[in-house]
Amino acid sequence: MNIGMIGLGRMGANMAQRLTGGGHQVVGFDPKPDARKALESKGAHSADSLAALVAALHAPRALWLMVPAGDITDSTLKQLLPLLAPGDTVIDGGNSNYKDTMRRAQTFAAQQIHYIDCGTSGGVWGLAEGYSLMIGGEAAAVERMRPIFETLAPAKDQGWGRVGPVGSGHFTKMIHNGIEYGMMQAYAEGFSILRHKQEFALDLHEVAEIWRYGSVVRSWLLDLTAAALAKNPSMTGIAPYVADSGEGRWTVDEAIDLNVPAPVITQSLIERLRSRDNDSYSDKLLSAMRNEFGGHPIKSE
Amino acid sequence: MNIGMIGLGRMGANMAQRLTGGGHQVVGFDPKPDARKALESKGAHSADSLAALVAALHAPRALWLMVPAGDITDSTLKQLLPLLAPGDTVIDGGNSNYKDTMRRAQTFAAQQIHYIDCGTSGGVWGLAEGYSLMIGGEAAAVERMRPIFETLAPAKDQGWGRVGPVGSGHFTKMIHNGIEYGMMQAYAEGFSILRHKQEFALDLHEVAEIWRYGSVVRSWLLDLTAAALAKNPSMTGIAPYVADSGEGRWTVDEAIDLNVPAPVITQSLIERLRSRDNDSYSDKLLSAMRNEFGGHPIKSE
Repeated sequence: MNIGMIGLGRMGANMAQRLTGGGHQVVGFDPKPDARKALESKGAHSADSLAALVAALHAPRALWLMVPAGDITDSTLKQLLPLLAPGDTVIDGGNSNYKDTMRRAQTFAAQQIHYIDCGTSGGVWGLAEGYSLMIGGEAAAVERMRPIFETLAPAKDQGWGRVGPVGSGHFTKMIHNGIEYGMMQAYAEGFSILRHKQEFALDLHEVAEIWRYGSVVRSWLLDLTAAALAKNPSMTGIAPYVADSGEGRWTVDEAIDLNVPAPVITQSLIERLRSRDNDSYSDKLLSAMRNEFGGHPIKSE
Repeated sequence: MNIGMIGLGRMGANMAQRLTGGGHQVVGFDPKPDARKALESKGAHSADSLAALVAALHAPRALWLMVPAGDITDSTLKQLLPLLAPGDTVIDGGNSNYKDTMRRAQTFAAQQIHYIDCGTSGGVWGLAEGYSLMIGGEAAAVERMRPIFETLAPAKDQGWGRVGPVGSGHFTKMIHNGIEYGMMQAYAEGFSILRHKQEFALDLHEVAEIWRYGSVVRSWLLDLTAAALAKNPSMTGIAPYVADSGEGRWTVDEAIDLNVPAPVITQSLIERLRSRDNDSYSDKLLSAMRNEFGGHPIKSE
């Protein structure tokens, strides 16, 4: 198929490359000339503006958006809309909030442009292994993009599917990321206990390797954890600071909205917040309270 | 090798079968005649008492214990000890508490009997796929049992290893199970949110299948979850009651002893306790407090 890729960052560039490798004609756009040059070196074409990109595609056009969620997605879509024609299809493959997606889809539908949301998992490994794609949108519109999804997925009939109407793809990806937070936190806590059991002097990389084969906790995340432990078992040089890119927060918001208790996913988010708070006001206040009622000593700064 | 298998329940019977298939001469003992008969039908021998089992093995003997942790393990070992001779080896492959293991190992060491602890993961799938084996004990004693471990593991050089001194195998398995609690809870919460998002009418089995290929949350537990969702997506007939067999509790105890925060593993255990409390005193008291201070209505039983 003929497809435009908007956003040639880590994810977009790899996806464009996988599509090109799968026989699709990809035209890529990114505001950074270096990103466009890198894409050309992989056998795809590039355009130096959104207008040039749209002009380079055959109608009805297919455009894959792979840019950061939020303002950048909104401003890109705003520029894109007047350039498109009825029958074109826009796929947002980024981590947009599903509510934004539903709002944007209405705007595009009003101009007879198909809007598809595709939650995309697989990270930097997706280029080689394929991406897991959770797709929301009108069934016929999704079906027309089948060749694209079949190429991006790990196999033609594996790892991708339309899960429901527009918004449901990003919703499903959001929950995927919430689960990911919980799994990561469970592994991290377990390895931390192992590390602190100094009398056994456990080799954490070896433990991870044993678990990779035949155990109940084997997983792709464990494979990656084993690789990290092989390189740096003492985690030297890594600050105990864990960022988040929003999907965990949205998952917790949604759980509360739906009255679904999700304590472990919630706690995993809270642990990330806690990891960034090395001057905890609540810890100071707790210490002060203990001093007030019991005369317990306060540790000074 | 020539080895005795004590305990022919779900795990022990499968392990005896895998060992027989791997060319080892297995003699099995279980107090239940049916279990012994089933083993014989798989090409192994059986003995109708511990004494007969010990007598049927070549010295120095190797005995694999696969019985429930706690009292049954203790009483079996108490009966076994006077039947053994210096140089024999006992492997506890069950889910014993590592502190019990360290205590028992001392008793056996005093009689020059080697004691090895082997945390065994893999459940009923281990027969076909092999078991993940976390082994504690004296290095030379573990090395002598290499042919057994190589056969039980998924591959000769995969999924097994000596992690440290006696006790460290069961310790590592205990933490493995703690991580397992956290992972299971994360998946369960995520799928529960998906299910409650009724406007998207998501097919949870389909979502699990998509995630199995290329996603960050792919894992063996997800494969099993997908199988469960295929059979019974509405979980009809399954009470919302989750048992535990102790290893999660021990993990939480250990985390506290070591001053290691493990909130998600702890919360996963608490959720299991909560699942069994359908007449929560604390929930009643919370409702009563709200009524006291705010006149908020109480929902009657």
